[in-house]
Amino acid sequence: MKTCFQGDNVAGVSPEIWDAMTAANVGEAVPYGGDDLTAALGPRFGALFDGECTVCPVTSGTAANALALSLAAGPFDAAISHADAHVATSEAGAFEFFSQGGRLTTLPGQDGKLKSGELDRYLAATDSRQDGAVPPRVLTITQVTERGTIYSIDEIKTLASIAKKHGLRVHMDGARIANAIAALGCRPGDMTWRAGVDLLSFGATKNGAMMTDAVVIFDPTLTGSLDQRQRRSGHHPSKVRFMAAQLHAYVSDDLWLRNARAANAAAARLAQGLATLPGFEIVYPVDANMIFLRVSPASKALLERAAIHFRLSRQPGGDIFRLVTSFMSSDASVDELVNRCRNALTEA
Amino acid sequence: MKTCFQGDNVAGVSPEIWDAMTAANVGEAVPYGGDDLTAALGPRFGALFDGECTVCPVTSGTAANALALSLAAGPFDAAISHADAHVATSEAGAFEFFSQGGRLTTLPGQDGKLKSGELDRYLAATDSRQDGAVPPRVLTITQVTERGTIYSIDEIKTLASIAKKHGLRVHMDGARIANAIAALGCRPGDMTWRAGVDLLSFGATKNGAMMTDAVVIFDPTLTGSLDQRQRRSGHHPSKVRFMAAQLHAYVSDDLWLRNARAANAAAARLAQGLATLPGFEIVYPVDANMIFLRVSPASKALLERAAIHFRLSRQPGGDIFRLVTSFMSSDASVDELVNRCRNALTEA
Amino acid sequence: MKTCFQGDNVAGVSPEIWDAMTAANVGEAVPYGGDDLTAALGPRFGALFDGECTVCPVTSGTAANALALSLAAGPFDAAISHADAHVATSEAGAFEFFSQGGRLTTLPGQDGKLKSGELDRYLAATDSRQDGAVPPRVLTITQVTERGTIYSIDEIKTLASIAKKHGLRVHMDGARIANAIAALGCRPGDMTWRAGVDLLSFGATKNGAMMTDAVVIFDPTLTGSLDQRQRRSGHHPSKVRFMAAQLHAYVSDDLWLRNARAANAAAARLAQGLATLPGFEIVYPVDANMIFLRVSPASKALLERAAIHFRLSRQPGGDIFRLVTSFMSSDASVDELVNRCRNALTEA
Amino acid sequence: MKTCFQGDNVAGVSPEIWDAMTAANVGEAVPYGGDDLTAALGPRFGALFDGECTVCPVTSGTAANALALSLAAGPFDAAISHADAHVATSEAGAFEFFSQGGRLTTLPGQDGKLKSGELDRYLAATDSRQDGAVPPRVLTITQVTERGTIYSIDEIKTLASIAKKHGLRVHMDGARIANAIAALGCRPGDMTWRAGVDLLSFGATKNGAMMTDAVVIFDPTLTGSLDQRQRRSGHHPSKVRFMAAQLHAYVSDDLWLRNARAANAAAARLAQGLATLPGFEIVYPVDANMIFLRVSPASKALLERAAIHFRLSRQPGGDIFRLVTSFMSSDASVDELVNRCRNALTEA
Repeated sequence: MKTCFQGDNVAGVSPEIWDAMTAANVGEAVPYGGDDLTAALGPRFGALFDGECTVCPVTSGTAANALALSLAAGPFDAAISHADAHVATSEAGAFEFFSQGGRLTTLPGQDGKLKSGELDRYLAATDSRQDGAVPPRVLTITQVTERGTIYSIDEIKTLASIAKKHGLRVHMDGARIANAIAALGCRPGDMTWRAGVDLLSFGATKNGAMMTDAVVIFDPTLTGSLDQRQRRSGHHPSKVRFMAAQLHAYVSDDLWLRNARAANAAAARLAQGLATLPGFEIVYPVDANMIFLRVSPASKALLERAAIHFRLSRQPGGDIFRLVTSFMSSDASVDELVNRCRNALTEA
Repeated sequence: MKTCFQGDNVAGVSPEIWDAMTAANVGEAVPYGGDDLTAALGPRFGALFDGECTVCPVTSGTAANALALSLAAGPFDAAISHADAHVATSEAGAFEFFSQGGRLTTLPGQDGKLKSGELDRYLAATDSRQDGAVPPRVLTITQVTERGTIYSIDEIKTLASIAKKHGLRVHMDGARIANAIAALGCRPGDMTWRAGVDLLSFGATKNGAMMTDAVVIFDPTLTGSLDQRQRRSGHHPSKVRFMAAQLHAYVSDDLWLRNARAANAAAARLAQGLATLPGFEIVYPVDANMIFLRVSPASKALLERAAIHFRLSRQPGGDIFRLVTSFMSSDASVDELVNRCRNALTEA
Repeated sequence: MKTCFQGDNVAGVSPEIWDAMTAANVGEAVPYGGDDLTAALGPRFGALFDGECTVCPVTSGTAANALALSLAAGPFDAAISHADAHVATSEAGAFEFFSQGGRLTTLPGQDGKLKSGELDRYLAATDSRQDGAVPPRVLTITQVTERGTIYSIDEIKTLASIAKKHGLRVHMDGARIANAIAALGCRPGDMTWRAGVDLLSFGATKNGAMMTDAVVIFDPTLTGSLDQRQRRSGHHPSKVRFMAAQLHAYVSDDLWLRNARAANAAAARLAQGLATLPGFEIVYPVDANMIFLRVSPASKALLERAAIHFRLSRQPGGDIFRLVTSFMSSDASVDELVNRCRNALTEA
Repeated sequence: MKTCFQGDNVAGVSPEIWDAMTAANVGEAVPYGGDDLTAALGPRFGALFDGECTVCPVTSGTAANALALSLAAGPFDAAISHADAHVATSEAGAFEFFSQGGRLTTLPGQDGKLKSGELDRYLAATDSRQDGAVPPRVLTITQVTERGTIYSIDEIKTLASIAKKHGLRVHMDGARIANAIAALGCRPGDMTWRAGVDLLSFGATKNGAMMTDAVVIFDPTLTGSLDQRQRRSGHHPSKVRFMAAQLHAYVSDDLWLRNARAANAAAARLAQGLATLPGFEIVYPVDANMIFLRVSPASKALLERAAIHFRLSRQPGGDIFRLVTSFMSSDASVDELVNRCRNALTEA
């Protein structure tokens, strides 16, 4: 069963990134990160983020999140995330695995966002905790959130400052960071380390790379065990130069932002179109490239009759579908879906 | 700073248990459970619970809980507990450790009790979970709860049947199981396996033993890795006969219930006395041997001036104190505390 | 400092594999393995190995080894490897990590090979082990070995049958399996499952792929937790179709064997050339694409003066260097190195 | 089947220790180590060892070893032990569990003793290790060894200084430390911290205590995570005062040494008697309270006919039996066994 706009990773690889990989495939290179492209990642991302950082390419977003969080929270510690966060719902306990048995504690929050008041109250309660507690050591914020909404820079700053007041580090799951930067129109550093983020999962795969995200570490005191953790988890590939090539191309000439703008624009167009259809309701603000759609039973039946399938989003409150656009989503493909839906709903 | 009625484990060892240990100290015995007393534990507890079971003595309640839960939930699984449960607040992540990185998920609930409707909704949502979820595999219920309340047998049956409907095993943290049985006046089997409990942490230390609780396993399919887990965690002591002796004496001639009745009666008397004092409010029903007390700022100041100290209970909603009686709590000691408080509050 | 022939993963990607990846980059595809290329891996490898198998693409050899071994050995179990095996020397404890605390036990053996007599004696001693032992559950054999030697099929059969006699599963670390198959001229199934191998780390990256090895599981009873382990370890990438494309191309038209034959031939030519040089001694039989070289102090000094550097192999017995050829190693590059060495040694 | 002299933990509790426990059972006490007896352990052991130390009572030797080692070696690290050490053969992977997946590496050595030359060579080889190695961080020495032999103070000093030269901490498994101190006639500090020992498993259970050993930490930089590790592993019992009482009595008035001397003398007497019997051979020097006996097939058959059973020691080289004396072993019981054996062997 084929579903429509089921995810941004149905897309392939951006041509610019492909060319960079092709160029990296000339001649020999020192493996395991000893090559020039990998060595240049730190300075390149330092320039991108207006500040020094360590860059560790990985082959999945889960690996990025789990590696990053394990640098800040060990077996005696807790990480705090939103209840809808990917680390909580979709990574099969990768945080618990990489942290050697840490605890993931989740907080609720409308529109996929952590609320600063609730966070502060929760952390304050843990401050005076009894013996034998598992103290929170890191807060993870997802930007773009799992509900397609975007935290403002001020919201991030507030959450991060609350976390730090209580002694926590701050991690950002930026699987869709480009969509957020593109939407906010800010500098990458403004939404990350300047707002209090110590560790970043920098996503690229969903937005044009082949199989490369990165852990970006702004706080140099957190890198101590990185090499051992990479090796021990099998995330230390030999021909890492091909990952470095992807990352270089991804952030060159604003490719990442151009791709993200295209995906965001497609989502806006799609949401606008769908919102006009009978029995369709857009559930969350469409800040980036994700749309959550509630569909009336009658309309749902008509869609099914027309063999139009969306991906179900697992959340309370009835049948909610998730549609995600990518940098490859054309206006034509967006309009075609809206028209197919309109026909299905009105022909009846 | 000495606090009043700070816990049931300030008490020592019941004379009957002491005598049994003394008797066990005659001659030699095969170590590591090869002795007669340890061998007799299974049949003895089988008679006590009206059904077959495996009994594994351990030296702490945390060990009992963590060992028991790890038999039902591994590294890919979640355990569900009340947010106030000892496993969640006071065991430093023992569940995560023994389960090799499982996840502990907590649910709220008034008076320290899980609510069946909320549990059902939560588990129903996990049934249709997406890939990469950490599925719940075991529910742990605390009886007596951490707030001193007692689940009725029907409440336990309902929670257990919901858990089983969704494929979970059921564990009971019975650190104060004797106080519950004494209060309910039921047979031990009625409140445990007949109500759906597969695994029990059978507490004895808080109620007259020296350093012995036990894992009681009603479901024989769960015992497979028990021996390895005991050894691997250092909970396989050589002279286990002294633990077995404690357990035998503890359940003989209703000692455990007599001790529990004494503690429960002392708590009732203490609660009755404290409730009459100005600025004192009993927060939760005093079903067993624990009293939670909210004290007005004015009264609190007077208590402090009189050097009367209670143990603070870490929970939201202002200064709440926890008082716990034990089998050693005499009427005189109860009355003395009430009188000291009354004098402190009225002399002013 | 550039070293000569320092590893097979200095090479890039075979053109045939590149073309397959390019073809996979057309249009959209269901992520996380729902695409046609990934779905076809099982049948394709089934045909290759003359038998049914499960194929799980991963991005590193360490991931392949650790995932595979963790399917056969858990936290209470031991894995047995040669003391020189990659899992023992170079993976930072990945086995211990993925197995949640299993034990790696190593045995010595000349030329990088496990000896059947020693293995049998060792395992026999563990059969009558005392309580509290950590029983061996899986044997891992490296083919090509870390010393560049190759087990005969009979040697593998003998080791595997000893392992099975004592209740162990058998894993093969085939990071260089193509070089072994090419050298032995056998069918892939003959050297693996027909010889008793249950789990295979199928290497491709060192021999022409970009970043793709695979776990191949011949015993279907071992796959139960594979999906959870992949997700939990971050080895479940979204655009896995690009990995599948690499694997398909790699085994098509004998590409993997053609590449391996080229590497093996280059190593033979290089060894032949080096063996004639003064102070040079080839340490192990050059069965595949690796050469271990002992160099006299005098010759070593002359090499250094000529800025010729080899990669030191960490092993007892003085300065031993490791040279590895790849599918990209040309006769010219081989002859050039031999000539440079000869000049350095004779000009003096 | 009852076996003769099968272990020192067949014995019960020394009267002096029993009296101390009885005294501790008067009145109430602050639980979880807040009592006076537990608070006094540090100073008491400081006086005993002529130096400051932290004392953590535990209920098993495995717990002592695993907790202690985990303070010095984490998930990326290795511990080095003798191949016969209890941590390697009998603790079901407790080190791997408590260290969160560390590696245990074993070295051989005659008479149960590590050899300094071999240790130095092994550690030197790891110094220049390649990337991805699991570096040794702690050496564990067993005193009395598992073969009943005793390291001289000079031997310990040599091993410890080699360990430290290579950056390792030193742990001593002193399950039978009293027997060693009694035999060497040295001060406890001389055989431990003055010889380079940082962490000690101080055994008492085998020599007169009920269920109490202790971790003694001489290096104060190693105590950081001790409290969390105790709680997380269930080794933080509430009524720890009863353990403290045992330890105080155990080291008072030289009780531990008096008990050990009695056990050692009984072993000497027993060995002397057995050595005269036909077909009996004492395998290792009887330095303390353990005898290893090789018995000819003919003699073994005669013993069995007379229903005399010894405990088999799992080790290569044929049927070797292990006999262990305790502080309760009387001359009469020793002589009786020798006579029974003589009769069995000569009556035929």
